[in-house]
Amino acid sequence: VWIGDDAAVLGPGHGRILLTTDLSVAGVHADLALIGLDDLGWRALAAAVSDVAAMGGRPDGAVVAVAGPPTTDLDLLYDGIARAAEAHGCPVVGGDLSTSGDLVVAVTVTGHVDGGPGPVLRSGAGPGDALLVTGPLGAGAAGLRVLRAGGAALGTGPGVRSGEDLQAVMAHRRPWARLAEGETARGAGATAMIDVSDGLLADLGHVADASGVGYRLEEVPVAPGATIDEALGGGEDYELVVATPDPVGLRSAFVDAGLRAPVVIGSCTADPAERTLAGTATTALGWEHPWGEGSMRT
Amino acid sequence: VWIGDDAAVLGPGHGRILLTTDLSVAGVHADLALIGLDDLGWRALAAAVSDVAAMGGRPDGAVVAVAGPPTTDLDLLYDGIARAAEAHGCPVVGGDLSTSGDLVVAVTVTGHVDGGPGPVLRSGAGPGDALLVTGPLGAGAAGLRVLRAGGAALGTGPGVRSGEDLQAVMAHRRPWARLAEGETARGAGATAMIDVSDGLLADLGHVADASGVGYRLEEVPVAPGATIDEALGGGEDYELVVATPDPVGLRSAFVDAGLRAPVVIGSCTADPAERTLAGTATTALGWEHPWGEGSMRT
Repeated sequence: VWIGDDAAVLGPGHGRILLTTDLSVAGVHADLALIGLDDLGWRALAAAVSDVAAMGGRPDGAVVAVAGPPTTDLDLLYDGIARAAEAHGCPVVGGDLSTSGDLVVAVTVTGHVDGGPGPVLRSGAGPGDALLVTGPLGAGAAGLRVLRAGGAALGTGPGVRSGEDLQAVMAHRRPWARLAEGETARGAGATAMIDVSDGLLADLGHVADASGVGYRLEEVPVAPGATIDEALGGGEDYELVVATPDPVGLRSAFVDAGLRAPVVIGSCTADPAERTLAGTATTALGWEHPWGEGSMRT
Repeated sequence: VWIGDDAAVLGPGHGRILLTTDLSVAGVHADLALIGLDDLGWRALAAAVSDVAAMGGRPDGAVVAVAGPPTTDLDLLYDGIARAAEAHGCPVVGGDLSTSGDLVVAVTVTGHVDGGPGPVLRSGAGPGDALLVTGPLGAGAAGLRVLRAGGAALGTGPGVRSGEDLQAVMAHRRPWARLAEGETARGAGATAMIDVSDGLLADLGHVADASGVGYRLEEVPVAPGATIDEALGGGEDYELVVATPDPVGLRSAFVDAGLRAPVVIGSCTADPAERTLAGTATTALGWEHPWGEGSMRT
């Protein structure tokens, strides 16, 4: 399936090129006692594509570098990568393979933005901008909790007690990058954007740091079956957080595009030190930094 | 130094985009008892850039994913990566970092071809095309042998006995991608091209397989201090092997560009089963497959 040349040839290019790389390490980003190698592959590709979504871009192709023990079931791993590539319209155009002690998958995605405003950075949010999220949060972390409680692989064990649990497990095993949402937000004049990969408060912190603003959150939508802690601290949901001075226009653009309208969660403020949820400083909530309990990362 | 956004923004694009990824694993591609972490970093970047050179392209930027033990001296690693990036005109525009047991560095480079003919593939060689190489081979493998004989790190130990040895050690520690050579060969109408990364006979085998041709080699230039076995089987020299129906024009183009004229080593033949060096079947020479003794790879 991979083009057997030194480099893949893509294009022709469409304006500015986006380039992003994302590591997935077994035991760090994925627990192979709980999910399959195909799930790890899917997640690795989706995570990299999500970085393109968070710029308002469209993926053009991925290259996949896999270092792992010789016993690794590469067919299963590549099956998950290929399915995610197809689902996200991001063909795998090349790769490299080596032995190593731990399984390490590095997915690099190139993409572009099609006409309209340029890529949406983290640094463009201004005081007064509304903050919206493209969907309820915490499903990925909830799914991991369900899997851990069940002790059975692949989400069919005793930990799964309801449809909500199963939905959360699938959110953990097979997350989707929000490509249509990202492009729509860019077209509607989003000033800053990020995907929820580390956890809402951690990722919002990245936007606030880069933009030199603070924020006040009112309320955060929680995914079915997830807790508020999972919604605030759980990463790898890949919903997008969008800043815009025109939340009404943003919501209209989403509805016009046939997408679920994003939800207003708060607004940006002029004081970079102000970071609150329902009046409480987010530092007190303990989710400022990524890689908390809600994430596989250690 | 890295742009702190979800994806790097490059461009605007220049026609067709090249994309390539290359793994460097400590203990597989580099022996850290013999070379420094900065050398590993340099080599990782140069190897990926070399894949762009082998298409006749120019690099636009690299992203670097590093998974390794928490004790890894990242400053030293990044120093080597940054120096190679500067030397090759290929800025590092993004990256990712994670913990893992072994040090794994995945460098992905995007590039483009500037006007003239399109990217040079492995598959375009025809019967009767001359085969040329951009320089003498085997220096990288010779350098590794010198380092192993010396038992001392960084090429200053007792194994280094001459200027040639030192030159070979530097070829191993700090190889260069032949970017100017690749672009010149593309402009001069090369029909197929590959960089010597696995070893001459292995890489020539890739070209022959992809092009459906055989080859007859007359003589192969051997780097100072290297053996003929190192020239035939040693990888990571990054000289380019070029096929062309017009070797005189190719050599002229190199001289006009201020480059050393490439050396004719043989020609392509119509029978894919014919693969000889000075009349001896190359299968008998034992260098058909990569990752022989001349390479770090196992």
